[in-house]
Amino acid sequence: MVFLSEIPPVTGNEALFCSILGNTILSTIPGISGAGPTPEKTLLTPVLDAELITRGTITSYPVKPNTPTGCPTPASITRAMMGLTGLQPLFINAGLRYLPTVPCLDVYGEIGEDPRFGPAVKHADALYKKGEWIGAFLSHQSDLLVLGECVPGGTTTALCVLRALGYTATVSSSFVENPVSKKEEICATALSRIRADQISKPLDIISYTGDPMMAVAAGIAKTYSGDLLLAGGTQMLAVSAIIKSIRSTLPGVVTTIYVRNDRSANLENIAHQIGVKIFYVDPGFEDLGHSGLARYCIGEVKEGMGAGGAMCLAYLMGYSPEVIRNRILATVNAYN
Amino acid sequence: MVFLSEIPPVTGNEALFCSILGNTILSTIPGISGAGPTPEKTLLTPVLDAELITRGTITSYPVKPNTPTGCPTPASITRAMMGLTGLQPLFINAGLRYLPTVPCLDVYGEIGEDPRFGPAVKHADALYKKGEWIGAFLSHQSDLLVLGECVPGGTTTALCVLRALGYTATVSSSFVENPVSKKEEICATALSRIRADQISKPLDIISYTGDPMMAVAAGIAKTYSGDLLLAGGTQMLAVSAIIKSIRSTLPGVVTTIYVRNDRSANLENIAHQIGVKIFYVDPGFEDLGHSGLARYCIGEVKEGMGAGGAMCLAYLMGYSPEVIRNRILATVNAYN
Repeated sequence: MVFLSEIPPVTGNEALFCSILGNTILSTIPGISGAGPTPEKTLLTPVLDAELITRGTITSYPVKPNTPTGCPTPASITRAMMGLTGLQPLFINAGLRYLPTVPCLDVYGEIGEDPRFGPAVKHADALYKKGEWIGAFLSHQSDLLVLGECVPGGTTTALCVLRALGYTATVSSSFVENPVSKKEEICATALSRIRADQISKPLDIISYTGDPMMAVAAGIAKTYSGDLLLAGGTQMLAVSAIIKSIRSTLPGVVTTIYVRNDRSANLENIAHQIGVKIFYVDPGFEDLGHSGLARYCIGEVKEGMGAGGAMCLAYLMGYSPEVIRNRILATVNAYN
Repeated sequence: MVFLSEIPPVTGNEALFCSILGNTILSTIPGISGAGPTPEKTLLTPVLDAELITRGTITSYPVKPNTPTGCPTPASITRAMMGLTGLQPLFINAGLRYLPTVPCLDVYGEIGEDPRFGPAVKHADALYKKGEWIGAFLSHQSDLLVLGECVPGGTTTALCVLRALGYTATVSSSFVENPVSKKEEICATALSRIRADQISKPLDIISYTGDPMMAVAAGIAKTYSGDLLLAGGTQMLAVSAIIKSIRSTLPGVVTTIYVRNDRSANLENIAHQIGVKIFYVDPGFEDLGHSGLARYCIGEVKEGMGAGGAMCLAYLMGYSPEVIRNRILATVNAYN
């Protein structure tokens, strides 16, 4: 087992971990997202995940940080890595249905709407500009930024954006059985609107069919002056595809091996089409002794809340795979 | 003329300027606050000030950054100093009526209510804890923090809190003629509620009669590990009085000489009672050649949005009084 597929060429030593929180109403369509106990409750997941990572526990709602099938959420992994490294993560609120329970750097965006029926992201330009402000601000504070996301339903918006930008893409899912046909149906309708209106500019494509996280992430990538790693799977590839049109060098993407192993998605192929380098973390959950984490290996959850990037960052900071694995196990065991 | 009364004993060199934005409904009582063209519009002032400082211009509303009588707002001074030093300020939203137009670190608080009729600050404990989180986060990012505030009507909440804590206090005002009797009337009613309920703990006093800024500022002061300067007049003395009960060393306070010269307030005496050191900036607006800035010298505006602290910080960073004064003049002239 290789813990990290390759060492990213980053040199910063004032590291910062951020994660962008956002909602798209698509996550409330039954079967689209596994990131919550019910479709409607997926809208609350970014808030609960941020609370878990910030406080180490969720007290604002009577829930455990597990999926309905008993998998520890990826936020648990991110929490474990923040505890291990002593890093204090910063959450960015790009547009949520519910008020966060912990402090967030807020751009005062709105939840993404259904791209089949109208604009998905209002004021994408303004969100992008606020992302630029955040990127410049964080450049003063750090020289290595690992930027994750938490957007339930976001693989569907990623699919729409990647296709609209001309990529041959199939995206991943937090479900073992990727609800491909539902995603394709939404994507087909969104793309027909985009084609009818002859939309081609990346920010306009976000407006039509993306989510608020994408606009903020692209703005941050535009102005951040240090080393940048995007932490996530196909959702971060959609961001990369946007960034390609606005920045000369593409930041690397880091995710888990479980996303790469998703046969319903063509992660590596999309990355090749965009020309972005992906780094894979393999935390070896199959033999960690936790049945819920082991389910990541058969395709459940896989990634989220920058968990892959958080593990990568801990490794780059000098923590060994064993220490990282043990910390994750101890953290998730403490919840149960 | 001495530009800075005394050099604060700070050693940090990774400086950060933050300002906490908040509202209290008290600012809408006619005659209480001069921080806006009408009493109702004072609620919008923190949002407009933050926009001015972040973007250098206000585009979201058709207003100029001047008071109704033609004085440049203190935010103009803060903007000038951020431009001069290259610092990128961070705004903290402690509880506002209107959504900010620029990114803010948000604690998801609410506007302060009228302390005569019920609790002024809901969930002051939660705001304080979120302030603690922010203080710890900013400790990772900087080693010198200049912390300002923008709370129209905040001298009245400061009066209530200082009196409730047992200090002999009269507070300053953005008006030339301090509406002392109105403030005293509000304070008397608030204090009678506090006495009736035998409230004495500082956070409880904020709950009864403070504003959301105070709770967040106190939390930040509790955990910030670098050098801290509170930037403001009597409002920051109210924060100091709270901090005194929760932190062993009191941060210094920095403000303008125009607040010290306010004969309707006893700034120096309050500071002496608390045991806090105050530093005064005298930017010499009387001979800068701008009639609006000169009105600061006869007691208008005086201070706000951490303007005194921003000038102090620029000076500590090595900018000469002449360079600072010229930058302020050029900035305010550009608006007119």
